[in-house]
Amino acid sequence: MPDLRKDPIVGRWVIVAKSRAKRPHDFESSPRIYAGKFCPFCAGHEASTPGEILAYRKPGTHANREGWRVRVVPNKFPALEIEGDLNKRGDGIYDMMRGVGAHEVIIESPDHLLSTADLSEENLREVFWVYHDRLVDLKKDKRLVYGMIFKNVGEAAGASLEHTHSQLIVTPIVPISVAEEMTGSHEFFKYRGRCVFCDMIQQELATEKRIVLDTPSFVAFCPFASRFPFETWVLPKIHSSHYENIQKNGVEDLARVMKQVIGKIEAALDRPAYNYIIHTGPFDSSEIAHYHWHIEIIPRLTKTAGFEWGTGFYINPVPPEDAAAFLRDVDVEAHEPKSISVRENG
Amino acid sequence: MPDLRKDPIVGRWVIVAKSRAKRPHDFESSPRIYAGKFCPFCAGHEASTPGEILAYRKPGTHANREGWRVRVVPNKFPALEIEGDLNKRGDGIYDMMRGVGAHEVIIESPDHLLSTADLSEENLREVFWVYHDRLVDLKKDKRLVYGMIFKNVGEAAGASLEHTHSQLIVTPIVPISVAEEMTGSHEFFKYRGRCVFCDMIQQELATEKRIVLDTPSFVAFCPFASRFPFETWVLPKIHSSHYENIQKNGVEDLARVMKQVIGKIEAALDRPAYNYIIHTGPFDSSEIAHYHWHIEIIPRLTKTAGFEWGTGFYINPVPPEDAAAFLRDVDVEAHEPKSISVRENG
Repeated sequence: MPDLRKDPIVGRWVIVAKSRAKRPHDFESSPRIYAGKFCPFCAGHEASTPGEILAYRKPGTHANREGWRVRVVPNKFPALEIEGDLNKRGDGIYDMMRGVGAHEVIIESPDHLLSTADLSEENLREVFWVYHDRLVDLKKDKRLVYGMIFKNVGEAAGASLEHTHSQLIVTPIVPISVAEEMTGSHEFFKYRGRCVFCDMIQQELATEKRIVLDTPSFVAFCPFASRFPFETWVLPKIHSSHYENIQKNGVEDLARVMKQVIGKIEAALDRPAYNYIIHTGPFDSSEIAHYHWHIEIIPRLTKTAGFEWGTGFYINPVPPEDAAAFLRDVDVEAHEPKSISVRENG
Repeated sequence: MPDLRKDPIVGRWVIVAKSRAKRPHDFESSPRIYAGKFCPFCAGHEASTPGEILAYRKPGTHANREGWRVRVVPNKFPALEIEGDLNKRGDGIYDMMRGVGAHEVIIESPDHLLSTADLSEENLREVFWVYHDRLVDLKKDKRLVYGMIFKNVGEAAGASLEHTHSQLIVTPIVPISVAEEMTGSHEFFKYRGRCVFCDMIQQELATEKRIVLDTPSFVAFCPFASRFPFETWVLPKIHSSHYENIQKNGVEDLARVMKQVIGKIEAALDRPAYNYIIHTGPFDSSEIAHYHWHIEIIPRLTKTAGFEWGTGFYINPVPPEDAAAFLRDVDVEAHEPKSISVRENG
């Protein structure tokens, strides 16, 4: 008999259908293979992207030239554009505004690497720190209210370029899923006087069965109401609502945890397509007691069908307890990152 | 500059990024090709499915034998199961219950056809009538509160079998997306005293620019805040909240409209994968003034990526005005349905 489980934050129910349970190797992998095409993100190809917004680079090197370690550029095909006012208006019963915002690409390495797990810890620290820098900067723009950082790896996860990169979209309204998280966690707080995420962390650490990785400042677990097989969340143990309030030492720990957790997922599932998304508080609030920033990592193993679109109700064939047990046992050290250098091919 | 548009029902914002605008032929189609495998849904293979729940058949023919026109069977790998009680319970801060419900498959034709557009109007009327019959029957079960009918066509839409079929999942809780539609339309009703869907129909018919098809009792349009390129909704013009209150003559018109609209989408987009989903009121209410049943048809042309998962905020590269204009101009009569008979292959 399948279980129905409720996400304690937004109230979304998930069907955990154990009768359809699968082992990791039952999923069709869509391995990420280097396509051999010209890569606009590789070092030496800086002229192929719009001019850089920010880069961490070797002293003495010049903007939009080689010598960078992490580089932020505007998206060449932006979903939102930074110039102009919002021009909020109605059209009969409909509401609309201009698509003002920001859409940036964070190129995570000058080398043609394919995944977070392939980056060195030093490199990854700078990636997580550049997220901080961009949020702090964009937050100053009073037209903008929310910054969403996410990463698509592999075609099945919506990536169009394979060179490891993440994206930042900053919107003039709070996205509906974020608003739901805010409302849900606020309701929980009003009722119990505690942060629902802090409660989750406490219960997960006590029962241990869904824990993937436990370190002094971060915990990774497969959530009780996982929508997707091997969905894994990474949360800071100390309460904090906004990612951009992270400190340098927090970024060090986060880089280590993310490299390990994604390494485990890649080793377990034969380098699947995946997304990660940083869930953080809106720009217009400073630290809040009921919300807790975290990163959701979603391997893309199953296709969403009509039922999921119509209901927001997910069917997950792998109980999170099984997924976590499997990921805990994966030895990341044994996993050889498949890094490819194609700088000479350019 | 892209537009931001708000769905007037649930308040979800969509980015309509005209700068990324595409013509129908710009989308990669994943054409549905007959795989040549044994098909458990074809006439003559009745023993390959669980025993039938309901079938419309020729007089004198026997259950689970040939002679049926439309046949309903339990899903062989059900997401929810009909036996037992809910056993609602907590586990620390988490809530759960047993996965009680129904998961049925509606086999829409004894022939190996691939899409709604390939069915005759007579056949399609019976498909839409069997939906009615199953909802009326399952509504009597007091443990169950919502019936979701949906159809997946093509692998990219989550279909695992190509023989034209739809599914019914009946759940013991109201799915979150349905609850959001109920809340949103109720808010609109409280504020304006009118059904938001009736208002949409009125405005769409007045402006005409997003209309795909207008008939005496149904209207099809691409919604103002379409999440997906060529997303099309079909609504009854006379207010009604529950699909199962449809009459025989309503089903006749609906069959004609759905065959034409899906035919247009298939002709325009080279038979893309698609889903349709019937949005209807929960079992525990009879006719309600603020909700309006409708069918959402979603061609699966784009991949959802990290941004959509994280925000519930969609980026649509085709303005619904352009999509509707294109679909209006498609001549469905010129479209030759690719029907395949493989009964002899079994």
